[in-house]
Amino acid sequence: MNKVNINEKFSLFTDLWSPKIAGELNGQHVKLVKVKGEFVWHKHDHEDELFLVIKGVLTIEFRDRTETIHENEFIIVPRGVEHRPVAPDEAWVLLFEPKETLNTGDTTGVFTKEKLDEI
Amino acid sequence: MNKVNINEKFSLFTDLWSPKIAGELNGQHVKLVKVKGEFVWHKHDHEDELFLVIKGVLTIEFRDRTETIHENEFIIVPRGVEHRPVAPDEAWVLLFEPKETLNTGDTTGVFTKEKLDEI
Repeated sequence: MNKVNINEKFSLFTDLWSPKIAGELNGQHVKLVKVKGEFVWHKHDHEDELFLVIKGVLTIEFRDRTETIHENEFIIVPRGVEHRPVAPDEAWVLLFEPKETLNTGDTTGVFTKEKLDEI
Repeated sequence: MNKVNINEKFSLFTDLWSPKIAGELNGQHVKLVKVKGEFVWHKHDHEDELFLVIKGVLTIEFRDRTETIHENEFIIVPRGVEHRPVAPDEAWVLLFEPKETLNTGDTTGVFTKEKLDEI
């Protein structure tokens, strides 16, 4: 039950597309992730996913459109909706999602992280 | 599935201690609330509660200590733990908690908001 300084936590790691667990509540995780470049297309069959941009710009591509998320903006991607996160420059993102959520959803590949570290 | 600009949402209301619903996912709500002054002591028997400070400073008193939460910091208050939010000056706070969460937890009084507006 200690407070968490988000920027301080982000200063502790440099690896990309590798979410770290920064909090847990009600079966959900708060995760912090640094992103840059193009992720893979995927969806989560059972989990809605919130992306809150802490620093930089995150683009989320959907099959029919693209959303650009800036600092202090968030978007909720509902379960079942295909999406692909893309960041031209490094961006820092806070995620809220169920503990069971796999980062690459219904796909597996080089980006898949089965086990996440706490930070 | 539209993005939400947090500061834009905060510019839409002025009332204090009256959380607005800014998002919903996995049975949880994202709420935005402006606070100033002293809230009531309470606990939530079944819900953990996350407070993320967007602007200003939020103090959370516990029975055995006090935590001071600044911008870009968050704290998770576990279910069952008595707490009292206090803000000497106006602060803007994002809450993440189950939809069923009543703002005053196991107490009711002038601060209790049974029905929250979406924003």
